[in-house]
Amino acid sequence: MDGVHYLLDLAIILFAAKLFSTIGKKFGVPEVVGEIIAGLVIGSAVLGVVKESDFLSIMAELGVIMLMFEAGLGTNLQELKSSGVKATLIACAGVIIPLILGTILFMSFYGFDSFGSERFMKGIFLGTIMSATSVSITVAALKELGKLSSTVGTTIVSAAIIDDVLGIILLTVVTGLSGGSQSESVSSVLLKVPAFFAGAIVTGFLVYRAMSWLDGAYSHHRRIPIISLCYCFLLAYLSETYFGIADITGAYVAGVILCNLSDRDYVARRVDISSYMIFAPIFFAGIGLKTSFGAMDSRLLMFSVCFVIVALVSKVIGCGGCARLLGFDSGDSLKVGAGMMTRGEVALITAQKGLALGLLTADYFTAVILMILVSSVVTPVILKKLYQ
Amino acid sequence: MDGVHYLLDLAIILFAAKLFSTIGKKFGVPEVVGEIIAGLVIGSAVLGVVKESDFLSIMAELGVIMLMFEAGLGTNLQELKSSGVKATLIACAGVIIPLILGTILFMSFYGFDSFGSERFMKGIFLGTIMSATSVSITVAALKELGKLSSTVGTTIVSAAIIDDVLGIILLTVVTGLSGGSQSESVSSVLLKVPAFFAGAIVTGFLVYRAMSWLDGAYSHHRRIPIISLCYCFLLAYLSETYFGIADITGAYVAGVILCNLSDRDYVARRVDISSYMIFAPIFFAGIGLKTSFGAMDSRLLMFSVCFVIVALVSKVIGCGGCARLLGFDSGDSLKVGAGMMTRGEVALITAQKGLALGLLTADYFTAVILMILVSSVVTPVILKKLYQ
Repeated sequence: MDGVHYLLDLAIILFAAKLFSTIGKKFGVPEVVGEIIAGLVIGSAVLGVVKESDFLSIMAELGVIMLMFEAGLGTNLQELKSSGVKATLIACAGVIIPLILGTILFMSFYGFDSFGSERFMKGIFLGTIMSATSVSITVAALKELGKLSSTVGTTIVSAAIIDDVLGIILLTVVTGLSGGSQSESVSSVLLKVPAFFAGAIVTGFLVYRAMSWLDGAYSHHRRIPIISLCYCFLLAYLSETYFGIADITGAYVAGVILCNLSDRDYVARRVDISSYMIFAPIFFAGIGLKTSFGAMDSRLLMFSVCFVIVALVSKVIGCGGCARLLGFDSGDSLKVGAGMMTRGEVALITAQKGLALGLLTADYFTAVILMILVSSVVTPVILKKLYQ
Repeated sequence: MDGVHYLLDLAIILFAAKLFSTIGKKFGVPEVVGEIIAGLVIGSAVLGVVKESDFLSIMAELGVIMLMFEAGLGTNLQELKSSGVKATLIACAGVIIPLILGTILFMSFYGFDSFGSERFMKGIFLGTIMSATSVSITVAALKELGKLSSTVGTTIVSAAIIDDVLGIILLTVVTGLSGGSQSESVSSVLLKVPAFFAGAIVTGFLVYRAMSWLDGAYSHHRRIPIISLCYCFLLAYLSETYFGIADITGAYVAGVILCNLSDRDYVARRVDISSYMIFAPIFFAGIGLKTSFGAMDSRLLMFSVCFVIVALVSKVIGCGGCARLLGFDSGDSLKVGAGMMTRGEVALITAQKGLALGLLTADYFTAVILMILVSSVVTPVILKKLYQ
């Protein structure tokens, strides 16, 4: 990176994100969507004035971590407990349906084959890519609508967190089945996931006690939000590095642990300001920034379009249908289904793993990126419509 | 960088900075000093748990940029105008005295020589390294004391800004005299500096008008602080990249341009929160983090100690003495002199340039780093004592 070029990048990203989100708002489009489009416009897809860099990736990651930490802080523990069983079932349905439909989609394009064959495995893998919800966009959209702590909001967020864990297990099983040497053993994953949550709960209890004491002694002191943020970063680091669980899940859990702190709003406000001033716009614009439309033949284009449609619809059927069966009314079921449609970096990471294992060719990346982009743009718009 | 290691770095830095600044406060030491010491402790000098990285350098730079932007925003324009002439004279004295005393120090250690000789040039170069004040630590210390907008505070900050410009000119002249091919021509620098300030004032007037209009239409909207910060980053980028003026000076000028905005405090508050939650502690801890004590022979050690003492004393004599002559009372003169003692990255950059030109050997870097560290720790402590 030459000199202080990152300053120009920051100025352009923050300005464009604010400009497009403001314009979007005038047309009733959620701010998040405006920010993603800003990234598309300034990125290589259109103007090409800002390029991806390591620095921007880290800033974007910090943005989504802070977003999830805030979501955790805003959690109503009672609500979370009561939504637990339902959220788990919704998450399961939201993984199984896309997995099945994704496999069928692949085979209907490239030919059906028997269980265990290479073509079948490729189909399963494409289904796996479809299965992981990325909740950050939904969190931002719900926050904008003021519905993050509602029953539907809590259900979506907790289902997405469970979905994340299911996604890891699924990926491990699939790569294990296809015999990749770099894949982790299923049993190790099945040990690590409960170990993380058990560890987080036990240490979280101690952290909460310590923070409560500190908060009682130094209410509304800067040290409260700063140390809370340290804890968030630490848990995000530990979850990703030692337990194979996404850093954003760690950040969310850190937020949940601190969500009953009496200074909870004071902390959330400070994290929110840091986030919206710099980090969050970089994350949302970063989604657009990453997108470039490579050369595509008509078959791949057709496949990509179907891929995106199946990805969206399968979550609505899986999660929304399950919610309906669990007693949500049809409006709320649709909201749950729509809220779970967003895909993100987990899909990309899974696709990269597939590339390394030879289960995927680079061509399919365009389909995956399209799915991330379309779901990120469509979800907030649909959620807003549903809440009107 | 492996995976999300930066999360661990952030958690450690923010926690240590807060811990040490809190402990320091109990002993009456300014917070800034506590944060620098935190960096020393976690850095390679003591524990070695956090290493420097590109990411941390950029975050630190953003921290000091936001700090200077805030200082600019807090400026009283009347005060700045009335302190202009005095500040210029103080800055000149604060460059000339260290230059002379630094040269004499070098030659009294390594032998006197005639004007224009290599040894003489080396002496002059060491004096040049001593001449550039880095005002950021002083700004933080004055802010902590609530004295940033006082007459003394404004004088120090504007003198330091002018000092920065004088430093560039001096460096250009000295490297020009020593005939380095990579040195810029003196005339080009003498054109660029006024061009920057003229350009900043003219465009700044337009920016201020536009922002005032926006502020009137959307008072207390997020867009005001965000766009202000964009402008700060942009001006910092332009000043450093195209005019050879430090990015922090650009940031300060951006703040001054916006300092009469009716939402000025609203903007400053949001920048302040973003800054103290993450960026500023990384900057201050970064000073300690960079420090490591290499092997030293006794002569070099002796020289380094004298170098630090001369560096501190020469600013007090130059700036403080000049302030006294200009009619400040002796207490305020001492504050001005003490406030100008801090050195920072400009000294390091100058030293690096000297290394490239063969005017300096790597040994002297320890002396320069020691000067930065000692002045950064001593200045806030002395300022606090003087204000009591």
